Amino acid sequence: MLAQIDAAIEADDRVALHASLDPLHAADIADIIERLAPARRRLLLELYADEIDGEILSEIDESIREDVVEQLPRGVLADAVREMDSDDVVDLIEDLDEPERAEILAALDDSDRAAVQQSLTYPDYSAGRLMQSEVVTAPEHWTVGDTIDFIRAEEWLPEQFYHIILVDPRRHPTGYVTLGRLLAARRDMPLRSLAEDSFRTVSVMAKDADVAYMFNQYHLISAPVVDADDRLVGVITIDDAMAVLDEEHEEDILRLAGVNDESHVSDGPVTTARQRLPWLVINLFTASLSAIVITQFEATIEQLVALAALMPIVASTGGIAGTQSLAVAVRALATRDLNRSNARRVVMRELGAGMLNGLGLALILGLAGTLIFRDVNLGVVLGLAMIANQIVAALGGVLVPLGLNKMGLDPALASGTFVTTMTDVMGFFAFLGLATLILI
Amino acid sequence: MLAQIDAAIEADDRVALHASLDPLHAADIADIIERLAPARRRLLLELYADEIDGEILSEIDESIREDVVEQLPRGVLADAVREMDSDDVVDLIEDLDEPERAEILAALDDSDRAAVQQSLTYPDYSAGRLMQSEVVTAPEHWTVGDTIDFIRAEEWLPEQFYHIILVDPRRHPTGYVTLGRLLAARRDMPLRSLAEDSFRTVSVMAKDADVAYMFNQYHLISAPVVDADDRLVGVITIDDAMAVLDEEHEEDILRLAGVNDESHVSDGPVTTARQRLPWLVINLFTASLSAIVITQFEATIEQLVALAALMPIVASTGGIAGTQSLAVAVRALATRDLNRSNARRVVMRELGAGMLNGLGLALILGLAGTLIFRDVNLGVVLGLAMIANQIVAALGGVLVPLGLNKMGLDPALASGTFVTTMTDVMGFFAFLGLATLILI
Repeated sequence: MLAQIDAAIEADDRVALHASLDPLHAADIADIIERLAPARRRLLLELYADEIDGEILSEIDESIREDVVEQLPRGVLADAVREMDSDDVVDLIEDLDEPERAEILAALDDSDRAAVQQSLTYPDYSAGRLMQSEVVTAPEHWTVGDTIDFIRAEEWLPEQFYHIILVDPRRHPTGYVTLGRLLAARRDMPLRSLAEDSFRTVSVMAKDADVAYMFNQYHLISAPVVDADDRLVGVITIDDAMAVLDEEHEEDILRLAGVNDESHVSDGPVTTARQRLPWLVINLFTASLSAIVITQFEATIEQLVALAALMPIVASTGGIAGTQSLAVAVRALATRDLNRSNARRVVMRELGAGMLNGLGLALILGLAGTLIFRDVNLGVVLGLAMIANQIVAALGGVLVPLGLNKMGLDPALASGTFVTTMTDVMGFFAFLGLATLILI
Repeated sequence: MLAQIDAAIEADDRVALHASLDPLHAADIADIIERLAPARRRLLLELYADEIDGEILSEIDESIREDVVEQLPRGVLADAVREMDSDDVVDLIEDLDEPERAEILAALDDSDRAAVQQSLTYPDYSAGRLMQSEVVTAPEHWTVGDTIDFIRAEEWLPEQFYHIILVDPRRHPTGYVTLGRLLAARRDMPLRSLAEDSFRTVSVMAKDADVAYMFNQYHLISAPVVDADDRLVGVITIDDAMAVLDEEHEEDILRLAGVNDESHVSDGPVTTARQRLPWLVINLFTASLSAIVITQFEATIEQLVALAALMPIVASTGGIAGTQSLAVAVRALATRDLNRSNARRVVMRELGAGMLNGLGLALILGLAGTLIFRDVNLGVVLGLAMIANQIVAALGGVLVPLGLNKMGLDPALASGTFVTTMTDVMGFFAFLGLATLILI
């Protein structure tokens, strides 16, 4: 598919390009635009600019949005943003710099512009940024018939809505009714009697990650957003919550590995290198700690060079165990499975598991060392060092993310580097220290 | 909260237990049941059994489901499963062994039982397992009025539904109408004219991960499921797709770290140790490869013991770079951002980034080595080894998951162990090999 499109761009063949792209869903067109090399992308936008609508624009990844917006003819851009729901306009505009921002705001209707500007007053990654201001409400004293008549008469309705939100005269949401129940009920039924148990509101200042958790935990489809006075200001729908959940996961998996989470598949080698260099440089320094530890034992290694060959085994098995414990803890913190109420139990569990695996691995490695080197004492050193390092790994893997979390930081934030530094240093220290005591 | 509940269980205080649990959402009650230690959990179920309904039961994690089901009074269990949608019954039953399975099937109505048994004929992790058979359909020639009258007259409707699926006389789905549009339209409008562009069906054999991707990519709320003859057999809703997406993420993050993905926060130390031991033992063997490489250079190390202290720096920085490249590749494969069409470009990108960072790190480390040890040649050895290992890390990090994916395996499956083995072996080999050539 990408090859066909590449060929059409190459040949400046507008007809072939349309034949390839027109049948596709906006999300797939956006993906193709993202995957093209930057020069190709510019050519494609020249040939296909008139077809870029609000739907495609809202699907384009933020890493290339600014480029795309700059290149669109002003009329196309204005038409596109007028089509978009307010949450999508906010999502687009928050990544842009001033001239484009002003231009897009100018293209909107007065009421849309007010809604977007209001949203932008809320902090980044808040429910206020995520919500759309387009909501369908009904006074709580209405009947099913009143509501259906109102909806039929309404000129404008959101693209997608799943609930009617009941509001009191001061616009406080007091419940919601699913459209399915509304359709199934007799016209004279009071709306109140159809309201769902699952109703809960979201504060406009709530973190988007907490909103995503709430949708997943309580199987919500939409949730009304309220301001500090408990007044309805918008609604968040599940597709936006699902996108946030997905971004959170991306952040966790990449941060654990020490990658800047702004990375994107369309980045070139220079951008990629720059995103990864910081943690590599930090690792140069943390790895130097291991080197310093080993240096203290140079006299020991001089007497028994085999130690130099064996020491990475203890260190690296500790690194794996630390990574395991860490991944479990970061995931459990993200799903709220690990929290204050059970942190102690989970730490004790990790300690127990670390001791058990330390013993098991010590037996295997100690026995192998004894047999291969025909030296019981070497086997004992390997075994004891392994036990010590497995315990450090298990505890480090859970305590580092818990500590970061307690300090209000992201528990995934490069905790991998901290934990493997701990297991490297401890692995070399325990092994070479014990060797000095027992073997030399 | 957990402390209060613990106290109530301890005191055998049914009233206090109800006071704590009754106001909670089923999902939160299930979380509490999961977090309790097994003995406590048994006591809680004795005190609270009568309140366990279908909603709580379907929220309970599969790791403890069998225990909970075994302990429920038979009448409570039967009532609970009769309340559940067919997809939730399937989800429950597929983890159970024969006696419980038969018992639950026996408790169902004939039509529900048939639907559940049909679902169980589809493979694990297929759309057929994920779908619910409860669907709301309308003949495609109906008008809005026909449909509303039908829904009003219908005794039984699914708990949640968001679309009316249009079917032809042979029960092939031909489109769907959102409830919002149905409500907003005049009674004499033909349903056909309200059908959504976004309509797409899912094969009953599709993988659940692909279904979750489709929901996220196309912002679907529900999708009709069809059999091999294209006939409608059920529907998948977005809350189920969101749960699958979340499980896929869990699998990725844990498998990358070499953890069995059946792990759960309520597991004890023995279970936890057993889940993690396999990859630790494998790592003992892969780490032995490093030891064997180092052994080949014992003569070199004997002459210059400082090499033993420096060699982990090159190896560990390679490990970090490999982990970075790997995390990006696994994530991009999961989101379909990395696929056949751009694999070559991404591999070249990683190679370029690896070379650039290799050069940068080589400069820093080479300079530091030269200054600290007052030996230009040692600096050159450190620098060259670093460049070689960064390239191996960058390529290994992307080629290992691409290779696993091509073989139809999960790209995250402990690829961390493969990649760090590569960077360890290469790190020690390049550094000690170059040292032997240049320094000795």
